[in-house]
Amino acid sequence: MAEKDLSGLKKATHTPQIALNSAVADSFERRHIGPRAGDTSEMLGALGYDSMEKFIAAVVPPGIRMRRSLELPDPATEFQALTALRGIAGRNKVLRSFIGMGYYDCITPAVLQRNILENPGWYTQYTPYQAEISQGRLEALLNFQTMVSDLTALPVANASLLDEATASAEAMTLCRAVKPDRRLFLVSDACHPQSIDVIRTRAAALGIQVAVSPVDEFRVDSSVFGALVQYPDTYGRVRDFAGLAERAHEHGALLVVAADLLALTLLRPPGEFGADVAIGSAQRFGVPPGFGGPHAAFMSVKEAYKRQMPGRIVGVSKDARGQPALRLALQTREQHIRREKATSNICTAQALLAIINSMYACYHGPDGLAAIARRVHSLTGALASALKSHGREVGPDVFFDTITVGAGREGAGEALARARSGGMNLRAIGDSRIGISLDEATTPEDVLAILGIFGIEGERDLLLRPNASYAEPHRRTSAFLTHPVFSQHHSETEMMRYIKKLESRDLSLTTSMIPLGSCTMKLNAAAEMLPITWPEFSRIHPFVPADQVEGYHQLFADLEEWLAEITSFKAVSLQPNAGSQGEYAGLMVIRGHHLRAGQPQRNVCLIPASAHGTNPASAVMAGFKVVPVACDKEGNIDIADLRAKAQAHKETLGALMVTYPSTHGVFEEAIREACAMVHEAGGQVYMDGANMNAQVGLCSPGDIGADVCHLNLHKTFCIPHGGGGPGMGPIAVAAHLAELLPGHAVVATKSGASGAVAAAPWGSASILPISWMYIRMMGADGLTQATRMAILNANYIARKLEGFFPVLYKGKNGLVAHECILDLRKYKSVTVEDVAKRLMDFSFHAPTISWPVPGTMMVEPTESESRAELDRFCEAMIRIHGEMEAVESGEADPVNNPLKNAPHTVDMLATEAWKKAYSREQACFPVPWLYEHKFWPACARIDNVYGDRNLVCSCAGFDE
Amino acid sequence: MAEKDLSGLKKATHTPQIALNSAVADSFERRHIGPRAGDTSEMLGALGYDSMEKFIAAVVPPGIRMRRSLELPDPATEFQALTALRGIAGRNKVLRSFIGMGYYDCITPAVLQRNILENPGWYTQYTPYQAEISQGRLEALLNFQTMVSDLTALPVANASLLDEATASAEAMTLCRAVKPDRRLFLVSDACHPQSIDVIRTRAAALGIQVAVSPVDEFRVDSSVFGALVQYPDTYGRVRDFAGLAERAHEHGALLVVAADLLALTLLRPPGEFGADVAIGSAQRFGVPPGFGGPHAAFMSVKEAYKRQMPGRIVGVSKDARGQPALRLALQTREQHIRREKATSNICTAQALLAIINSMYACYHGPDGLAAIARRVHSLTGALASALKSHGREVGPDVFFDTITVGAGREGAGEALARARSGGMNLRAIGDSRIGISLDEATTPEDVLAILGIFGIEGERDLLLRPNASYAEPHRRTSAFLTHPVFSQHHSETEMMRYIKKLESRDLSLTTSMIPLGSCTMKLNAAAEMLPITWPEFSRIHPFVPADQVEGYHQLFADLEEWLAEITSFKAVSLQPNAGSQGEYAGLMVIRGHHLRAGQPQRNVCLIPASAHGTNPASAVMAGFKVVPVACDKEGNIDIADLRAKAQAHKETLGALMVTYPSTHGVFEEAIREACAMVHEAGGQVYMDGANMNAQVGLCSPGDIGADVCHLNLHKTFCIPHGGGGPGMGPIAVAAHLAELLPGHAVVATKSGASGAVAAAPWGSASILPISWMYIRMMGADGLTQATRMAILNANYIARKLEGFFPVLYKGKNGLVAHECILDLRKYKSVTVEDVAKRLMDFSFHAPTISWPVPGTMMVEPTESESRAELDRFCEAMIRIHGEMEAVESGEADPVNNPLKNAPHTVDMLATEAWKKAYSREQACFPVPWLYEHKFWPACARIDNVYGDRNLVCSCAGFDE
Repeated sequence: MAEKDLSGLKKATHTPQIALNSAVADSFERRHIGPRAGDTSEMLGALGYDSMEKFIAAVVPPGIRMRRSLELPDPATEFQALTALRGIAGRNKVLRSFIGMGYYDCITPAVLQRNILENPGWYTQYTPYQAEISQGRLEALLNFQTMVSDLTALPVANASLLDEATASAEAMTLCRAVKPDRRLFLVSDACHPQSIDVIRTRAAALGIQVAVSPVDEFRVDSSVFGALVQYPDTYGRVRDFAGLAERAHEHGALLVVAADLLALTLLRPPGEFGADVAIGSAQRFGVPPGFGGPHAAFMSVKEAYKRQMPGRIVGVSKDARGQPALRLALQTREQHIRREKATSNICTAQALLAIINSMYACYHGPDGLAAIARRVHSLTGALASALKSHGREVGPDVFFDTITVGAGREGAGEALARARSGGMNLRAIGDSRIGISLDEATTPEDVLAILGIFGIEGERDLLLRPNASYAEPHRRTSAFLTHPVFSQHHSETEMMRYIKKLESRDLSLTTSMIPLGSCTMKLNAAAEMLPITWPEFSRIHPFVPADQVEGYHQLFADLEEWLAEITSFKAVSLQPNAGSQGEYAGLMVIRGHHLRAGQPQRNVCLIPASAHGTNPASAVMAGFKVVPVACDKEGNIDIADLRAKAQAHKETLGALMVTYPSTHGVFEEAIREACAMVHEAGGQVYMDGANMNAQVGLCSPGDIGADVCHLNLHKTFCIPHGGGGPGMGPIAVAAHLAELLPGHAVVATKSGASGAVAAAPWGSASILPISWMYIRMMGADGLTQATRMAILNANYIARKLEGFFPVLYKGKNGLVAHECILDLRKYKSVTVEDVAKRLMDFSFHAPTISWPVPGTMMVEPTESESRAELDRFCEAMIRIHGEMEAVESGEADPVNNPLKNAPHTVDMLATEAWKKAYSREQACFPVPWLYEHKFWPACARIDNVYGDRNLVCSCAGFDE
Repeated sequence: MAEKDLSGLKKATHTPQIALNSAVADSFERRHIGPRAGDTSEMLGALGYDSMEKFIAAVVPPGIRMRRSLELPDPATEFQALTALRGIAGRNKVLRSFIGMGYYDCITPAVLQRNILENPGWYTQYTPYQAEISQGRLEALLNFQTMVSDLTALPVANASLLDEATASAEAMTLCRAVKPDRRLFLVSDACHPQSIDVIRTRAAALGIQVAVSPVDEFRVDSSVFGALVQYPDTYGRVRDFAGLAERAHEHGALLVVAADLLALTLLRPPGEFGADVAIGSAQRFGVPPGFGGPHAAFMSVKEAYKRQMPGRIVGVSKDARGQPALRLALQTREQHIRREKATSNICTAQALLAIINSMYACYHGPDGLAAIARRVHSLTGALASALKSHGREVGPDVFFDTITVGAGREGAGEALARARSGGMNLRAIGDSRIGISLDEATTPEDVLAILGIFGIEGERDLLLRPNASYAEPHRRTSAFLTHPVFSQHHSETEMMRYIKKLESRDLSLTTSMIPLGSCTMKLNAAAEMLPITWPEFSRIHPFVPADQVEGYHQLFADLEEWLAEITSFKAVSLQPNAGSQGEYAGLMVIRGHHLRAGQPQRNVCLIPASAHGTNPASAVMAGFKVVPVACDKEGNIDIADLRAKAQAHKETLGALMVTYPSTHGVFEEAIREACAMVHEAGGQVYMDGANMNAQVGLCSPGDIGADVCHLNLHKTFCIPHGGGGPGMGPIAVAAHLAELLPGHAVVATKSGASGAVAAAPWGSASILPISWMYIRMMGADGLTQATRMAILNANYIARKLEGFFPVLYKGKNGLVAHECILDLRKYKSVTVEDVAKRLMDFSFHAPTISWPVPGTMMVEPTESESRAELDRFCEAMIRIHGEMEAVESGEADPVNNPLKNAPHTVDMLATEAWKKAYSREQACFPVPWLYEHKFWPACARIDNVYGDRNLVCSCAGFDE
């Protein structure tokens, strides 16, 4: 029966339904979707339609409509889905893993788990582009940067990257950008294998030559632009790289050090022995391994390379009151601006995880972190001593938390099997050596148990031996985390209040809608979020044997099948751990297709002018040459231009990258024609899944004619945006591309013909339960209804506002898809930025501004917003329209007006001399419902230019 | 070894410690305690002491100091303790329970679990006495009252009681208060047995005669003051009680109906068939059974009885701006004022659970609730039909969710055993009948499984039969939950925002300290809170067989042993589920002791004049006559008066009730003498545990000479206050009283000579993991250090403020215990209430005001507050002192000043015409750190008198 077989991959067979069940179960659909039934019919009425079906038929061109229903399991209630997922989770076995390789068990302080990871006030925010209402997470991310910078001893750190392996690859391209005329990158063979794998994939497409060898065999000469070493290395060895750094610099090359943050509390930091770049994973600072992710990676660089830094950097600037304030710095580096000239496509990173990392550092402080490191190191020392004293061959001489042991005659396999039966996973290094990495959660009993695997019993006395600290040149002598923020929050009460104080500075979905056109900020339901902190999902090392993760594999199989069904594709890879990585991975599949077909010359990628900047950046990373395609004045692809370009590049055409519905929010009629044209010219079609929320159940990338697409699970499939990550960007491909999906160097995956694009085989596995829950609870009808409602909500807003702001692009019937672009370009005295800041005074997050068209706002309300919320937003926009008109007409002062002065902070109200040309009420309570509940911006308008001219990106610059 | 044997009852044996372990494990003690080591020595220095030991020796009289160390397990880290508790939880078996009897499985909406139950922004608040900073939970509780009032059709509901059984007893005493000259209370024998048990215990002490019989045998005459029936009854029967109501009223008696809220969505409500009082449990509205609690009980009454209502009532009034605002109404009814004349001692109730109940109703709305009820009822109907059609004898004729089945020849025991092996618990009614109650979580598969127990297979078709709705007179015809609040939050996004909006109106420990002298508001650590939502603790019916709850029994055994050790007593009962109930239970034990000794005349209870009002109220409930004892001018018990009173009542002396340290916050030197005096005169000593936080590890009730004490686990042992409950008030007793601890009618407990005092055998079992975690993580040294730090923090504040406000009572060395009383009585133009409201402008919750001495404030900072927070509080008080002096001296206007106008709301700042005689900044940002983070009161000063004169206690009156 359906209710018991919740986890089935197939659609429930249609045995007669039990009336009592189907009639009454609480439907999740009505929880996820905002408007009530009565609202829906009124909203349809306002648009001139008497049925949803007629309305949708008018929006979605008939030619592209899906002619079938999605085949998905019947919808489950929250309770049913959670029960089923508990069953799946129960098929994962939580062993103690001492595998290392960049992933470590750790202890998430409960105060962080509860108040950050499990708190929508922290996980539902958008990327902090609107800095005045994002000061909380900006401060937490500044702490992260300070932490990384202090521990690595390099002055400029970013606010996280996706994982250590991609961070290695990013470091490589950074070095290349510094020395663009060189082609050779040296990589230590003692780096983690998954990092080497990702580097190789990345290098191949960019024409970079990678030489993997022992560090001692590095040949540094003038062809080398950089070198990467691991510190401590994957086999545990701590080496002195000062000589290598010197040699590299002599030859004009850069040294990248992949480092372990915990080890750096005791070891001489990379910046002090000459490293130019440090990268690594911050996972073990409080974020569970989660079978591979999500975790924040980090990067820090010397001052000279800050403008080559990929990812986002939080910087200190000042606000209109002259007070210090934070915002994203140096944004002109990013691919939004630089497009195909960008050296990285990183967009969403791992903000939420970086925040947890930085709070972990605040909670423990420098002494606490060093104490944890000393404990881990001492236990490792005790383990090594005991093994040696029993005749085992143990390496290396200098280590931190990892040693390797000769397996002896029996071979590693036997020992590992014995370990597993004792509840432990060790690392096999070939069959002759065994790797063992200890961590924060390791107990003396664990060490005794490990010794037991090697037949050593009762060696408790050994563990009493105090461990010597590091000698020169390995010992760290410099102080770190000296800023007071790392010392003031060591009691839980202080920590909790600090977290809550920062939370109160961030506008999240817990306050009001975040109606972005560039991201789908729908409900992240609590039932979807509950499973991610279950130990069966969170406390699993990514490289455990497959029989310990049968639950995960079932989850992956379900999700892959469902996503393939939704996209009308054949196969799915869950590896790419961000949308940008999905784009890159998808294009790499297309590249692989052409290579397989013996057509390596097919390297032209057509990209419409309106595309998101990440598209051209990804294309370049995948080895394509970008050729822009024009758009017509309705915002559609200019079919004539497309035809011309496809023909012009007929011999070299590799791909068309297209977003659907278009980035202008329109269901283009000609999409099938466009795809056919590209296919005819020998190219493949890549569909950007950013706007998938307008497609699910109504049409699909496969049906429309695409060959590959990526899906932003953090947009369409409910993974929360986390204030700038985690994201997940799996790709779906047609049958002919199925074998070309990414593989993995350590873990066998189904396809695996291509190289890895992320550190972990299934990307950020531990957040996949979120999307599984969403699809499982919505079912085919629910998902389709969500799409319809997303479109209805957008059109409702468009209709209510079009009398005030022209709606820029519409389909044939005057309707938009799931978002609408409001044109503000007629105003000369007021900018879209003014309006964005003014919306803060109404407790709203601004829509996406000036993208895809400068001077406009793109509004995407999603299906989760209620009609009341849409009405409030429209009311705010209409009020602002009035203010804009007043400025434009000269009625209001061109400078001293509520738009230019926005946002208004509460302390402004407390000044006696109110020098504004409008009332206090108009400034702060322009509509009456703000008296009921108002979100106060933590600072006034921030001066971006000042901050970029005086770049400060660590805490030291933030004190008043 | 210690680390593995975390759950051991005994102190870890002293095998050689592993240095690596003990040296580095993160200590919970430093997370729980606020001041850092450096702060501590400076604070001691400020008090003139160079060591903690000397300081404590000066505070605690040597004669009462404990001469031993507490024998408790060594402290565990958060991670270790959680691991150990997971092991304990694993010994509980979660079966599906269809036992009924007032406890039902239910589905807690994830959005409520995450954002209320697991959110310190909701669970760390104090009781909403300071209404202006409590508008969030007051609104949620008003919704609860509206929900109860609507569903029961009785106009006045309170904001929760402790459980259904004590609510039944409260209803009995309410009826008695209406008819004080009558002695007989009729109770249906089809009430839940635990309710009858608690009623009998309560009645015996009050000289009330209880007649338990079938309703048909009720003899209503002029000796009867009230009657109690269950609706539907414990065997599932739905009866028409209209005739009974009529008969009762004819004879001047009241009818109390114990009702099921879910059933009332379909059944004619009590108020419509003549009930005077309705009571019951709201548990199944979203709160898991939790092996007995905590859950909110409810009571609603006719208008005429509102002033007899026990517990707290939220009422609508207006604030200084003339806008509607909420606060606790009719507080003069409560025992704080009425003392021994109060008819109830209820103080802390179940606010947090009532809030979840009311949010559950908001989330489902009237239609959703009725749909759930119809589904449960239909499944029950299908079950009954299937059983009958297979020849089973099934009753009753009219039912809601519960039926009983004839056990047939095999007897109930066999069938129940079969059910258990199938993972289900049913109810045995003797050996001849089986009770089955279905609930919201029941699936059709469950029903089929139940049928399987009775040998009925494959009856799926039966479940398709639609169930008839109720006929007259049973059918409900009236609407309910018609207020918009029950219809506006059905999407999760709206629900989440509503919860967060209300949260933002409440000052909780997440904002700043709540320095109450009447309650110990210490850290409620996240690690302590995590386990309460584990299904192994939460989804267990209180009446399951003991072999399913071995984990719970281990938890109880641990906790009982530890609490006995801490109090120097012999035995502990975990049954009383609030401090007030602990007082009552403890006094009942003393009463039982005298009865056992053949001295029933020993009914005088000496209570110092300074005692908390609950003390005399509890004494009266336990059948004692209260004789006050004077206090001397230092606030100590007047030993001469005590001697005189003890002598005067030598023949009838039953007990002395005493709080230690005294309610004046002083370690009285003469406490041993006082106890000895009472013992000599034949009495027993009851020690109120409210101030236990000043004793743990330094002295103990048993050592000082008491015979019984209660402990407020929600004060000293970290159960959060929940905004007014849940509390837990276990009692500890000396060996000679061990056999007199409360028993239980349904479940065998260790002692059980006395009657039950609460519905569940171990009270609110599911929150006991909180206290277990606290004691387990702190260990003996940690607990003792917490006590020392609580005392140090209080003395630090006293020293910093005594130059501004005289500290009223001190011990011999000029030191206070864990709280200090600031004397404000010299001010004629400013009241303590003004100061309390003014503190809100500084983002602080006021200390306890005018208790135990009118015109004073009692400050208890607890050990969890950091020195920085103490300093901020002192700075606020010193600023306020300046403002008070200005008013008092005439420098400031006597009316138009920041004290009288406090608190100031943010909308006041937005008015153009600032008519205050002081600046906006002085009003709202009197100290600079408020610009960093400020909590804004949601309303201005509330007019209490207006609200009490115009009592409105449901949502209808709250709309603007």
